[in-house]
Amino acid sequence: MYRIASIGGDGIGPEILEAGKVVLDAAGEKFGFDIAWEDFDIGADCYLATGDLVTEDDLADLSRFKAIYFGAIGDDRVQPGILEKGILLALRFHFDQFVNLRPIKLLEGVPTPLANKGPEDIDFVVVRENTEDFYVGIGSRFAGGREEKTLEVVRDIYQVKFGMDVETDAEELAYQIGVITREGAGRVIRYAFDLAARREKKLASVDKANVLSDVYGLWRDVFTDVAKDYPDVATEFSFVDAVTMWFVKNPEWYDVVVTPNMFGDIITDLGAMIQGGLGLAPGGNINPQGTSMFEPIHGSAPKYKGQNVANPMATIWAGSLMLDHLGEHEAAAAVLAGIEQSITGRFVTRDMGGTATTSGVGDHIAALIRAM
Amino acid sequence: MYRIASIGGDGIGPEILEAGKVVLDAAGEKFGFDIAWEDFDIGADCYLATGDLVTEDDLADLSRFKAIYFGAIGDDRVQPGILEKGILLALRFHFDQFVNLRPIKLLEGVPTPLANKGPEDIDFVVVRENTEDFYVGIGSRFAGGREEKTLEVVRDIYQVKFGMDVETDAEELAYQIGVITREGAGRVIRYAFDLAARREKKLASVDKANVLSDVYGLWRDVFTDVAKDYPDVATEFSFVDAVTMWFVKNPEWYDVVVTPNMFGDIITDLGAMIQGGLGLAPGGNINPQGTSMFEPIHGSAPKYKGQNVANPMATIWAGSLMLDHLGEHEAAAAVLAGIEQSITGRFVTRDMGGTATTSGVGDHIAALIRAM
Ligand SMILES: CC(C)[C@H](C(=O)O)[C@@H](O)C(=O)O
Ligand SMILES: CC(C)[C@H](C(=O)O)[C@@H](O)C(=O)O
Repeated sequence: MYRIASIGGDGIGPEILEAGKVVLDAAGEKFGFDIAWEDFDIGADCYLATGDLVTEDDLADLSRFKAIYFGAIGDDRVQPGILEKGILLALRFHFDQFVNLRPIKLLEGVPTPLANKGPEDIDFVVVRENTEDFYVGIGSRFAGGREEKTLEVVRDIYQVKFGMDVETDAEELAYQIGVITREGAGRVIRYAFDLAARREKKLASVDKANVLSDVYGLWRDVFTDVAKDYPDVATEFSFVDAVTMWFVKNPEWYDVVVTPNMFGDIITDLGAMIQGGLGLAPGGNINPQGTSMFEPIHGSAPKYKGQNVANPMATIWAGSLMLDHLGEHEAAAAVLAGIEQSITGRFVTRDMGGTATTSGVGDHIAALIRAM
Repeated sequence: MYRIASIGGDGIGPEILEAGKVVLDAAGEKFGFDIAWEDFDIGADCYLATGDLVTEDDLADLSRFKAIYFGAIGDDRVQPGILEKGILLALRFHFDQFVNLRPIKLLEGVPTPLANKGPEDIDFVVVRENTEDFYVGIGSRFAGGREEKTLEVVRDIYQVKFGMDVETDAEELAYQIGVITREGAGRVIRYAFDLAARREKKLASVDKANVLSDVYGLWRDVFTDVAKDYPDVATEFSFVDAVTMWFVKNPEWYDVVVTPNMFGDIITDLGAMIQGGLGLAPGGNINPQGTSMFEPIHGSAPKYKGQNVANPMATIWAGSLMLDHLGEHEAAAAVLAGIEQSITGRFVTRDMGGTATTSGVGDHIAALIRAM
């Protein structure tokens, strides 16, 4: 018996999550476990009604769960960034979900925009750091002497680095600070090495240490230190700009990729596209000792809300990642196999060229699992 | 008569630049102008012999030129980052080359890794900001109290943002700071609007304002302000992660793209791949009032040095951008047409499946131009 928190969120979020629950319940039936779902009312409606994004009470309640199943957030009535930062990033940071796990796997029967590549070429995992780097939210913006405290910080930075007094400069300026710590880099790099050791024993680190040499210089040093504990894993350092090329040209080169937060955001979306698009891209936000969270990486697609047309497969796949995380490896594999069978049987939603509904796909995959 | 500075640099740099010069000289003959080349000895050899990257004398001399024709830098004997930062980025910053211009154009006869896309689908321009953002080189790294000055800055940052005293925290930490100014964003955004106004009147801004909201919030505000002067140009804001998807899925959507430095670095490499790879990707570093610099965006490929096998087409194309910048639009178009004819005639180097040499391609394209 697992107790799992669920957050439907905005737009299509609740529908796709519902389809996912139907599938996971079926997997539980088949593999002998029960799931007790506990729903949380978090998202744009709640925010607009109460002004709350995630309350202290929510956080306290959620902390009692090992896993959160998450739909999607984002709403046209709310300025971009508010819900994303106030809910999604807030949960990732609060629960210290330092691993963002993104399988990049082209399933059988799914078209990729890449010429001459098939499922045998596209099958790797990106481990994105999820709590540091340019996502720490340190930055500010000021014009002239408007904001005294910020000005002080900027002045210090400029003085230390350039011996230059920024007070004399009246133009409008904004700065943003990224932070990498030895501990923060070390734990996610170690996670990636462990994963690579269980797969094909190949790990690529993606950074831009030739230009952002302070943060990513530390990242590389930590990587080099951790690598000493994994002599069997072949490693390479690569620059993020080049990696976007190789994902497109030679995805078959990759097994496990580990990367700081911001570049991880970018290359996992590129990865999503080569695996068939956002409709098929799940993500896990993992704290191995705490509360983890599993989500489709796409948004809330407000214009399809309530129409029962959205593709739930990314959410269902996220459910498979969640089962895997909970130790239900067989059930996890069955869920992924169910998705793949649904696709090869052409039981798919409109975005994939089919006519099935959101709930229809959930029910179908649930039935496929029961019949396995 | 044009006086142009040339920097061959390292590895294959001198060979590909020589091929480019042969082509540009031929274009001059055909279109009635002369080029006086002045070579500068800058690169790994010079650095290893003298310790100098770019001297004050070099900078003073180079400042008398409107254009620099640049080969490539990078050498196995030098730690990654030293030459890139000390030469390439140093020149971009010193000469305030605030526009990095990257045509993403699939030429006739060039294979792209994208399925079902052709030259009619892939033809846009990325305007990358080239002097700000996370490329300003402000950052530091410290462990405990080792480096007093840096510690002070970090402490201030943490105090202002978190009311937290970082001195109590002994772990190793690095930070990196990005800066966007109103002036810096404004001038490159205006350049992009001007370019879009001469093309299909579509301009996309690429950022990550939903997370790095201080720097890219300012960027968006400046974009919105500048847009008021261009009511005929259709605009959109997009997030960098999503843009990597659309470059692969729907490159035909794009006309002109403008983006801050770091994301520009990433998406232009992705662009290079969809236009056929680094062998065919030129870049211009432009200061409309000062000294500009034109280069292939690939590296110095040390292992092919001196073998006369490297593909000079990106360099020759960079030469076309340079002629365009100098106002020789017809000659610029002829050089690009020459490259395209050489490709459709299968007169190409090994990397493109041919048997031609570096100098052979240069001579061939020069002959094609003379015969036009
Ligand atoms: C919505 C946004 C804040 C988020 C991110 O940038 O991490 C998303 O792009 C993702 O990758 O999960
Ligand atoms: C070599 C490197 C410093 C450079 C950059 O990051 O700008 C390169 O990748 C480019 O895009 O010209």
